[in-house]
Amino acid sequence: MSNSLRAAIIGATGYGGAELIRLLQAHPYVTITSVVSTSNAGAPLAESFPHLNQIFVGILDELDVDLIAGKADLVFLATPAGVSAELSMKLLAAGLKVIDISGDLRLKSAEAYENWYKKPAAPAEALERAVYGLSEVFGDEVKGMDLISNPGCYPTATLLGLIPAVQAGWIDPSTIIIDAKSGVSGAGRGLGLGAHYAEVNENFSAYKVNKHQHIPEIEQALSRIAGKDIVTTFTTHLVPMTRGIMTTMYATIIGEHTEAEFIEMYRQYYEGRKFVRIRSNGKMPATKEVLGSNYCDIGFAVDERTGRLTICSVIDNVVKGAAGQAIQNLNLMMGWEETTGLLFSPVYP
Amino acid sequence: MSNSLRAAIIGATGYGGAELIRLLQAHPYVTITSVVSTSNAGAPLAESFPHLNQIFVGILDELDVDLIAGKADLVFLATPAGVSAELSMKLLAAGLKVIDISGDLRLKSAEAYENWYKKPAAPAEALERAVYGLSEVFGDEVKGMDLISNPGCYPTATLLGLIPAVQAGWIDPSTIIIDAKSGVSGAGRGLGLGAHYAEVNENFSAYKVNKHQHIPEIEQALSRIAGKDIVTTFTTHLVPMTRGIMTTMYATIIGEHTEAEFIEMYRQYYEGRKFVRIRSNGKMPATKEVLGSNYCDIGFAVDERTGRLTICSVIDNVVKGAAGQAIQNLNLMMGWEETTGLLFSPVYP
Amino acid sequence: MSNSLRAAIIGATGYGGAELIRLLQAHPYVTITSVVSTSNAGAPLAESFPHLNQIFVGILDELDVDLIAGKADLVFLATPAGVSAELSMKLLAAGLKVIDISGDLRLKSAEAYENWYKKPAAPAEALERAVYGLSEVFGDEVKGMDLISNPGCYPTATLLGLIPAVQAGWIDPSTIIIDAKSGVSGAGRGLGLGAHYAEVNENFSAYKVNKHQHIPEIEQALSRIAGKDIVTTFTTHLVPMTRGIMTTMYATIIGEHTEAEFIEMYRQYYEGRKFVRIRSNGKMPATKEVLGSNYCDIGFAVDERTGRLTICSVIDNVVKGAAGQAIQNLNLMMGWEETTGLLFSPVYP
Amino acid sequence: MSNSLRAAIIGATGYGGAELIRLLQAHPYVTITSVVSTSNAGAPLAESFPHLNQIFVGILDELDVDLIAGKADLVFLATPAGVSAELSMKLLAAGLKVIDISGDLRLKSAEAYENWYKKPAAPAEALERAVYGLSEVFGDEVKGMDLISNPGCYPTATLLGLIPAVQAGWIDPSTIIIDAKSGVSGAGRGLGLGAHYAEVNENFSAYKVNKHQHIPEIEQALSRIAGKDIVTTFTTHLVPMTRGIMTTMYATIIGEHTEAEFIEMYRQYYEGRKFVRIRSNGKMPATKEVLGSNYCDIGFAVDERTGRLTICSVIDNVVKGAAGQAIQNLNLMMGWEETTGLLFSPVYP
Repeated sequence: MSNSLRAAIIGATGYGGAELIRLLQAHPYVTITSVVSTSNAGAPLAESFPHLNQIFVGILDELDVDLIAGKADLVFLATPAGVSAELSMKLLAAGLKVIDISGDLRLKSAEAYENWYKKPAAPAEALERAVYGLSEVFGDEVKGMDLISNPGCYPTATLLGLIPAVQAGWIDPSTIIIDAKSGVSGAGRGLGLGAHYAEVNENFSAYKVNKHQHIPEIEQALSRIAGKDIVTTFTTHLVPMTRGIMTTMYATIIGEHTEAEFIEMYRQYYEGRKFVRIRSNGKMPATKEVLGSNYCDIGFAVDERTGRLTICSVIDNVVKGAAGQAIQNLNLMMGWEETTGLLFSPVYP
Repeated sequence: MSNSLRAAIIGATGYGGAELIRLLQAHPYVTITSVVSTSNAGAPLAESFPHLNQIFVGILDELDVDLIAGKADLVFLATPAGVSAELSMKLLAAGLKVIDISGDLRLKSAEAYENWYKKPAAPAEALERAVYGLSEVFGDEVKGMDLISNPGCYPTATLLGLIPAVQAGWIDPSTIIIDAKSGVSGAGRGLGLGAHYAEVNENFSAYKVNKHQHIPEIEQALSRIAGKDIVTTFTTHLVPMTRGIMTTMYATIIGEHTEAEFIEMYRQYYEGRKFVRIRSNGKMPATKEVLGSNYCDIGFAVDERTGRLTICSVIDNVVKGAAGQAIQNLNLMMGWEETTGLLFSPVYP
Repeated sequence: MSNSLRAAIIGATGYGGAELIRLLQAHPYVTITSVVSTSNAGAPLAESFPHLNQIFVGILDELDVDLIAGKADLVFLATPAGVSAELSMKLLAAGLKVIDISGDLRLKSAEAYENWYKKPAAPAEALERAVYGLSEVFGDEVKGMDLISNPGCYPTATLLGLIPAVQAGWIDPSTIIIDAKSGVSGAGRGLGLGAHYAEVNENFSAYKVNKHQHIPEIEQALSRIAGKDIVTTFTTHLVPMTRGIMTTMYATIIGEHTEAEFIEMYRQYYEGRKFVRIRSNGKMPATKEVLGSNYCDIGFAVDERTGRLTICSVIDNVVKGAAGQAIQNLNLMMGWEETTGLLFSPVYP
Repeated sequence: MSNSLRAAIIGATGYGGAELIRLLQAHPYVTITSVVSTSNAGAPLAESFPHLNQIFVGILDELDVDLIAGKADLVFLATPAGVSAELSMKLLAAGLKVIDISGDLRLKSAEAYENWYKKPAAPAEALERAVYGLSEVFGDEVKGMDLISNPGCYPTATLLGLIPAVQAGWIDPSTIIIDAKSGVSGAGRGLGLGAHYAEVNENFSAYKVNKHQHIPEIEQALSRIAGKDIVTTFTTHLVPMTRGIMTTMYATIIGEHTEAEFIEMYRQYYEGRKFVRIRSNGKMPATKEVLGSNYCDIGFAVDERTGRLTICSVIDNVVKGAAGQAIQNLNLMMGWEETTGLLFSPVYP
């Protein structure tokens, strides 16, 4: 277990890349030795992100696997869908460890990937080799591996909120409905009318209803936990804010379980995992209560009138939903304490 | 059918009152002859609302039923819960017509009111006499009446979105789940940490889960349509924006019905009702697309994988969810064309 | 003086175009007979702007001067800089009246245009013929003319706030400093990182300091009023909101004048002009107090310690700063009452 | 020089208090041993601030000087104006060091305090003893002292932006105009219509024009630097965002100095001070580029047409404008490296 690692970030001019830089600046064991951008190579990173002036003084590298392999031990892929599929294998071949933040390696089924992402799937070898790093659930599988597929933002909030109840058999998985809401940073830094300020501000909208590419990722994990195929109803909405995801989840309770019992059961499930906080006070968590941090906060309401459970799960999509969990996976991979470099407080207000 | 009406507004220093003034300024048949505030009587209204400078020059009156009866033919009650319960009967006794925007007269069951509102219910006579003015559904019952209870903001969006499907028997009412989101103006102008800028901005939160006082109002109407008792799961969320409500609703489809069939059926249901717009393009409506207007826009998604229908319904909570629908009810009461004074476009962007 | 006019809108898929449609829907004398877009011709306008579903059912026309001349009497040019320069002359030649909302015809000096806009100037004939329609100041010159250049958003707020004091000789024009702030809609619907939600939200920034193309427009009008060349310091800032401009203006007072005297002098200057509201209560106006409306609200503070006057002037940039003032100019051109179709209240909150 | 300090925070349920807790959690030498609230004593702090659940588990103490003296070495006073005036002397008498974040001890003149704050001034002894901790300018005076008055948010941004130019004699101090803009968190957690979401959102307003209590603080420091009395014009505006201040400052340049010369001169002035970043790329800084961090970013524009300099200075009002600079002062007091615990990156986007 080395306490010193050289990391490269590919896709450093996107929001995921910028957040990796912010967080890794505070990580005691990691040095960023290369930041890569296909579009701005040769320019200082701080030209793209002035908030990093005098904090990160590096120049953007070309995407050149050999160059990266000469500088780094591990690569974070903060790239759009479709890029990691092939790139990850080349990086592994060059002896690098890889943590992929994109969706390319999350689905074990190439067919499902192609159906939902409308792109060619990654090579079978990559899909097989990639370990799905939902840290608090499958973290044990990450240790010592060299290719980690970091979970999507919606799946992270959703799965951490649902898995204990599904595993316990306390809810009927066929009744699960997930109503998800995200801040606009989830759409990335690429321009589009859907992220144009005057269109999004003072507006609340639904998008990709029943068609979001995170649906098969959620169902794959829930099915694995339940031991049978699960399909869910999943709706995504855009909230006029920058960071934050809430998934509000509904399911019919099996048997009799009080709110207090759910809380207790979840606390046991997440015992020792600092980044999941189960609310006890009957108040649901709010996205701002995790902003800028790696926490996932979860609250419960049992409705005796309808026999349904309502779960609210919140994360910062850029941290726990991307860069933060990627570093958490790095810690698990390397055998470091899971929380290394990540124990900072949310920014409030 | 007179084409000239003198209106008083009680609660003119709240947001519902201000919006009534904005909208009635453009109504061809109505003159506002009294604006009433218990707290600021004697001061110009424009001191409370500088945007009305030189637009509405009236002085705030005391709350004095005789005074109002001498000046007006009809009263809008834009008051907090608990006020209309008694006041409405006094106003009626003084010969005034009343349109109540508060929740006091919406529930026919005094017991339900007291359970959900935690206040004493209105007199039985008032509850009986009040007509529930969900214009597009129960509008026929409004004509010629003198006590109208204006629907709540969440119930308006919810019921307009659900009733055609429930009435047609195309969805299973026992499976209805309503995930509701509202802008902050719904909380009114009264101060509270829950509407404090730094707490709400860049934040998305859930509140009153399974406990919102609009639940029995929704269930009362749905049960009436279905001809049997219906209970629903209803969650309310706060969106960092000022105006707008979206309710995302889920239910299991009974039989086989395509998206196109739902759209066609809803269009027939709302035939001739200008303020309900059914989307056809596979895109869900966004709250900004109705901002400042009396429209309710509704979209559908049928998920063949799960057999569920997803409905998104959006309104401006201050207009269709309060002042606008109140004026629509006024039009219906008076036998005027339903759209009189209300046919203005949403404000976009 | 006809009371019936057929209007075309070129650039109907931008925000200025959409606002013209919203406002003209409520104008008693105008019918929109053509909406033109070079990019989306043939498609329903409501595909670009779903909020206009069932409100405006027209199909977008090609940009064809003869076609427009056959359908319309007057054209609003809601086009980006550089388009009107030539187009306006063609439209005039085809017998159409023209109101140009772009900046192409505002500067009388072709050299100044080319310096500040970095584009070729319009033909001298067009620059000469165009009347600068700052309604409350130069409105008399608009009557009966056929080519109106509608003022820019910043100049409108700035000039209405400064001109009475400059004309009265109560402030020293060489000391004028204008600190301007605008909502993001001023940047239009075109995509750019500067209007990307995650970049702009929760952010306040300055841009084009001393370089904004509205500087020569402001100086041209002030110089005309003062009868000598005036240069000003002008800074523009971007506010995380959609609509609204405030210009905060500073100048050294000449002689002794109290706040009350400034207020009285401005009220006399704007006597009878309904869209300028001078605040009397010692409180400065806020942008939201004019949102969605054609008002310009102005407030004053005299600082005896420094001998300086501070003026705050607010408008809705899309209304008084663009579409609303264009319609006001239409009214003046046609000899109609200036306020026709424009007397609606701001939307608050 | 001890590397271990026990700190108490009085006013822990306000935003300044919460931010101190967030930042001190990451400080290597400080342990928070008491959090004090007069209103919520006895309750867990995390009830007031759920984002601190499981991060800070302390219970709120009563305000009891002896109790605090028994637990802590130093007290941060994050209290409203009027509280520190007396309290600070009692805390000093009990042997505690004090860093006061309120405005009570900033003005050396009791008369000025009473004129601008409309409250009784602190005892002369306290005013004399308090060291004004504008770290990058007067930081040398802080070392080893026991009563530090932390600068106000507006003064911090303003003074760091102006002092080098004033000290160099490159601008005429009698021409200084400061146009300041702040996010809403500056108003604190106390309720008021001025911080009510629906009033502030999508709104830009000016307030306390020429009357803000930070004016004498700014003038006191500038006068000290200039060696003569300076009065300034200072306007404050409210921006619809939570965190961030920009001050845009104008002054007439004395002599001939280019933008590049100003940049170079400021860089020399702030040599070795990591928290002031001078922009070189002709782009002004934006508030979001320092959000959540202790940086102050400053940019310049020289206008040859008017001979004026425009300076933009941005800070996070809760960090560099309050809690962050307080910790910076703590570091200076204690002889620790100025940046200890404060070298984290801004949160972007």
